[in-house]
Amino acid sequence: MSGNGFGHTFRFTTFGESHGPAIGCVIDGVPPRLPLTEADIQPWLDARKPGQNRFTTQRQEADVVKILSGVFEGVTTGTSIGLLIENTDQRSKDYGDIKDTYRPGHADWVYEQKYGMRDYRGGGRSSARETAMRVAAGAVARVVLDALAPGIVIRGAMVQMGPHAIDPGRWDWDQRTANPFWCPDGKAVTGWAEFLDGVRKSGSSTGGVVELVASGVPVGLGAPVYDKLDADLAKAMMSINAVKGVEIGAGFLAAQLSGEDNADEMRMGNDGRVHFLSNNAGGILGGISTGQDIVLRMAVKPTSSILTPKKSIDRAGNEIEVSTKGRHDPCVAIRAVPVAEAMMAVTLADHLLRHRAQCG
Amino acid sequence: MSGNGFGHTFRFTTFGESHGPAIGCVIDGVPPRLPLTEADIQPWLDARKPGQNRFTTQRQEADVVKILSGVFEGVTTGTSIGLLIENTDQRSKDYGDIKDTYRPGHADWVYEQKYGMRDYRGGGRSSARETAMRVAAGAVARVVLDALAPGIVIRGAMVQMGPHAIDPGRWDWDQRTANPFWCPDGKAVTGWAEFLDGVRKSGSSTGGVVELVASGVPVGLGAPVYDKLDADLAKAMMSINAVKGVEIGAGFLAAQLSGEDNADEMRMGNDGRVHFLSNNAGGILGGISTGQDIVLRMAVKPTSSILTPKKSIDRAGNEIEVSTKGRHDPCVAIRAVPVAEAMMAVTLADHLLRHRAQCG
Amino acid sequence: MSGNGFGHTFRFTTFGESHGPAIGCVIDGVPPRLPLTEADIQPWLDARKPGQNRFTTQRQEADVVKILSGVFEGVTTGTSIGLLIENTDQRSKDYGDIKDTYRPGHADWVYEQKYGMRDYRGGGRSSARETAMRVAAGAVARVVLDALAPGIVIRGAMVQMGPHAIDPGRWDWDQRTANPFWCPDGKAVTGWAEFLDGVRKSGSSTGGVVELVASGVPVGLGAPVYDKLDADLAKAMMSINAVKGVEIGAGFLAAQLSGEDNADEMRMGNDGRVHFLSNNAGGILGGISTGQDIVLRMAVKPTSSILTPKKSIDRAGNEIEVSTKGRHDPCVAIRAVPVAEAMMAVTLADHLLRHRAQCG
Amino acid sequence: MSGNGFGHTFRFTTFGESHGPAIGCVIDGVPPRLPLTEADIQPWLDARKPGQNRFTTQRQEADVVKILSGVFEGVTTGTSIGLLIENTDQRSKDYGDIKDTYRPGHADWVYEQKYGMRDYRGGGRSSARETAMRVAAGAVARVVLDALAPGIVIRGAMVQMGPHAIDPGRWDWDQRTANPFWCPDGKAVTGWAEFLDGVRKSGSSTGGVVELVASGVPVGLGAPVYDKLDADLAKAMMSINAVKGVEIGAGFLAAQLSGEDNADEMRMGNDGRVHFLSNNAGGILGGISTGQDIVLRMAVKPTSSILTPKKSIDRAGNEIEVSTKGRHDPCVAIRAVPVAEAMMAVTLADHLLRHRAQCG
Repeated sequence: MSGNGFGHTFRFTTFGESHGPAIGCVIDGVPPRLPLTEADIQPWLDARKPGQNRFTTQRQEADVVKILSGVFEGVTTGTSIGLLIENTDQRSKDYGDIKDTYRPGHADWVYEQKYGMRDYRGGGRSSARETAMRVAAGAVARVVLDALAPGIVIRGAMVQMGPHAIDPGRWDWDQRTANPFWCPDGKAVTGWAEFLDGVRKSGSSTGGVVELVASGVPVGLGAPVYDKLDADLAKAMMSINAVKGVEIGAGFLAAQLSGEDNADEMRMGNDGRVHFLSNNAGGILGGISTGQDIVLRMAVKPTSSILTPKKSIDRAGNEIEVSTKGRHDPCVAIRAVPVAEAMMAVTLADHLLRHRAQCG
Repeated sequence: MSGNGFGHTFRFTTFGESHGPAIGCVIDGVPPRLPLTEADIQPWLDARKPGQNRFTTQRQEADVVKILSGVFEGVTTGTSIGLLIENTDQRSKDYGDIKDTYRPGHADWVYEQKYGMRDYRGGGRSSARETAMRVAAGAVARVVLDALAPGIVIRGAMVQMGPHAIDPGRWDWDQRTANPFWCPDGKAVTGWAEFLDGVRKSGSSTGGVVELVASGVPVGLGAPVYDKLDADLAKAMMSINAVKGVEIGAGFLAAQLSGEDNADEMRMGNDGRVHFLSNNAGGILGGISTGQDIVLRMAVKPTSSILTPKKSIDRAGNEIEVSTKGRHDPCVAIRAVPVAEAMMAVTLADHLLRHRAQCG
Repeated sequence: MSGNGFGHTFRFTTFGESHGPAIGCVIDGVPPRLPLTEADIQPWLDARKPGQNRFTTQRQEADVVKILSGVFEGVTTGTSIGLLIENTDQRSKDYGDIKDTYRPGHADWVYEQKYGMRDYRGGGRSSARETAMRVAAGAVARVVLDALAPGIVIRGAMVQMGPHAIDPGRWDWDQRTANPFWCPDGKAVTGWAEFLDGVRKSGSSTGGVVELVASGVPVGLGAPVYDKLDADLAKAMMSINAVKGVEIGAGFLAAQLSGEDNADEMRMGNDGRVHFLSNNAGGILGGISTGQDIVLRMAVKPTSSILTPKKSIDRAGNEIEVSTKGRHDPCVAIRAVPVAEAMMAVTLADHLLRHRAQCG
Repeated sequence: MSGNGFGHTFRFTTFGESHGPAIGCVIDGVPPRLPLTEADIQPWLDARKPGQNRFTTQRQEADVVKILSGVFEGVTTGTSIGLLIENTDQRSKDYGDIKDTYRPGHADWVYEQKYGMRDYRGGGRSSARETAMRVAAGAVARVVLDALAPGIVIRGAMVQMGPHAIDPGRWDWDQRTANPFWCPDGKAVTGWAEFLDGVRKSGSSTGGVVELVASGVPVGLGAPVYDKLDADLAKAMMSINAVKGVEIGAGFLAAQLSGEDNADEMRMGNDGRVHFLSNNAGGILGGISTGQDIVLRMAVKPTSSILTPKKSIDRAGNEIEVSTKGRHDPCVAIRAVPVAEAMMAVTLADHLLRHRAQCG
């Protein structure tokens, strides 16, 4: 078990390289009798798909998912679900020139150090191509959540592009699908587009911050001590390519707060349920969901695939300069949004089933 | 497996509540023939121990660890290692008054929602008392690291207390053990002490930021895709009580950088080995250690155990105000330092054994 | 995770050597709010305890179990349960003479080959002393089963001692606790006693066959394909010291049968439920429980601790003869009965929770 | 994780139904830089393939395996290996008539009870079609074993068909591939052929016993206490369709032996290595391999797909009679031989890597 699977009770295991014939996964633990077809998965893949506008890599992948097992007459059978996506636009020749060189900031060198060799085509297994299977598994997880805990809504948004943050006061969920950046602040979009055009044209790249909100999550999910819900979410997000930081609720800001300011006070709502007067906890206390929105932010670094030559070495140990001319994303944080949503979905589905196992 | 264990190949599983008779753990997967006695564990526990100065909780625990198995004639046998610490200063009466009330910002209410009941004495299983076993397991992990990958040094420091950050330019590792705050900036200590005395005297609390550095880590640790080294570290740290954010290397700052500024260039050193010209990656690329220092920061929230009354509810659903008069830590981030070091150690030991399994 | 734990969702992890200070375990995944005290565990330990009559080893262990965590005010809290039994009658001097010799048929030599050393006192970790923790965990599993699937009865019986089998036609469950052999055939007991006295007095040993029956198990437990209920039971039983064979239902006899004779026909009972007209399947089809009795038999080898000198070698590679003069069991199959029951209980509890996770 | 994977460090996870579009698996943990192509896998699949003579089901499957990932330029990369086999001869119409009936002795009824529905086509997930992926994973495991522990030879043979056992004194490994039964006793073949023709022509079926021998296994594999090598082998074999019993070494016969007769004496060989004078242990002591041949036998029941009508019920609860007219195997034990070999290979590969993790 060398790290190609995620989850304990709802568990998916993936395979596939950027330029191999196909990528795929097996999902184990899905409850039976849930309606599931490719149409439940494809839209999420389409949302992640590259090449949809000038702000993402121009690689063209149809990303058509096929369900190979675990579904019969339109519903899940309780057995393992096999999913497959064939790679169609592999254009390996783009990468022939990096066969013997290590791109700074990429995994080229460490893969070769760890394994003694590497599939250099498009980054091989370290490519963000792998995230398509996260999205597919996430779509199945959403089906599980919809059936077992109806009302959960998982949405991600990009809240900062490079140095340009949104104004949280202008947050509007409807905006985020009205622009190519998943940006919830309509007024920020134009500035971002100009900024990113500049980045793109200069062959550079920029980082970003993604915020995830899961609403309607039931109270009680999470398995203390080591499988706290926030711990598993942190792992889920940090396992996504290029993510360098994760925070829950007030996050790093909480370090500056006093106990008085940080504690979320509780009151009985008119609906007879407990309400919190703030959400610095980000919906998780002691590793267990509180029923408030789960709020999580993650930092995405700029891709290292840039035109500007950077110092590196080659396999022979020669000192060289490397610049990347192939297709790439000027801001990978954009495409990280649906991936992060998917990882939230699989983590919640896993903990929902784990909770059901122990607590009924 | 409801979350009371951590690790895959080096794995420890813990038990014990704040006010039960004892806490303990089982460590599975330790290589045989490593010298190990209680003296290898006790100093790390002593470093974490509460009540050592006015800046931590006045609970007095001897925290004497006993090795119950897995060691024979002073060396590990390869079988599971049982560790036990008896609780001695449980003073449960302090907590009788929270039996029917939920402290805001604590896990009281969610535990009761999840499990339908709770051990309210000192927070029960959600207490930071549990972290003693992390430190004990971490000490054993250090023995494994010392034997299999000599030269690894794991050190944590507190780099921010409330709003007061250190000056990184004054970083001096020798300073951190010369003050009660693990502070590497000798000049910051006086200000921190005054600040924390104020916090303490007013019955308040403050958060903080801890930075961890692991030096001498071999290249190649980490199991992509989902068990990336940084992903497992993020989980390890986020599972510690009160931690709300984790970042690796440049972390959230990376979101603001351009690809040019973020990429760590590579050169051949005079020693014939690859050197990086910067370390924005924090020692991990593609989920695999690069051999550079692993650099990680985590945000610790202020404890919610404060004197100021805060709005809450009781078990009967009445709206009440809660203030905490028992012993508590004005800044739990201080005691999080040795705990974070321990979690780094167990994560590295686990990945070292996993790497050895697959790659020899 | 080097093999010291068992189970997936209900999971226990053990530690302890034959002559160490204590043995213990951590049980993870127990549902909350189940009544549990030491009195629920102790009787099962007493039933397994050695030294109760002349037919088992004369080692005297009080085997008093302490619950160290996971229980508050008499009910489980949902957190991990720590159990501890102190060793009291370790008499290590009995074993000084085997420090440098390998007993044939024992694990001495392989432990030393695998780990490069061994705790030779009483077999160390390979001792049947370890099975006390299986029985303790099994007792907790029974509490889980009683609460979640009331009516399950798990009973083991010895059906063959050396070459002497019972007459299945005389099977009487009431008999099995009326003799020191867990023998369900009252008429076989006298013969067995004479036979075993002879074995004992000559310093020899004998094997036996244990049959387990679990009644009242709900339909539907088991997780195909690889975690079939019978597969996990086979592992559970084969992991018990000295067990060399496991069969379910008709078992090895099924190899001789025709499809006509082997298939268990089905009819609707007067109670409106499906009834089977036979039980060659042993209560499991396709890895899933059928609701019939789960019937399992296991073969237990004779202990190799015998007076007759046997050829062996010592650590220096000299050829020697070894005979065992210490306390031992003339027929370890007897004490395997409560252990096997316990392993059935933990396996069923695990699959019950796993089933609940996936199927509700 | 609902049971569709096997192994801890070398782990494979499978999917696919008898009549779905394809079956496949993901293998995780394979060491890097091992030569691997489809040609290393296909011969083992061919050996298992149905329809090769009149003694197995006439289903015709090409069983062409494709490697979809984890291999680059002919060697493993250390990343997960995806394998796929398309189903080509699904002939679902054969099974339309069992849509609403439950075949006695099959998993039809329990699947429907557990999951609330079932894929009835050819048994769906419970079909022996699934075993093709075991064989494929086993082929990869053999590549791992050949590289890391050269000299291991894993061979299975059928030693009993129905009531007809071989004469062990005539055992000849060369014979087993010279007949359609994997029979190592050339003189038994004619009788078996006549017997099985009779079984086949009458639409009946028969059981059998398979014996597995693994030679050249290094000393020291196995992870006591619960993941003993024999425990994991017992699980591996019992998870194969139709297997009802597993025994190691002397197995059930050991129950009849005295300690004197059962203990395998040890002597120093002329080669300076330890030799055993017998192998009642079947190559495993204390759950750890001794370096002797690992010898294991398993009982395979007769398939319940027979022409003779047997009493059953249908989905509506009506009492009916069921006979099976579709293609089926008169003796499934034959095709269990390569499957059992594969499960031996994956179990040994897993324990080899686990041993390397802990003991280097």
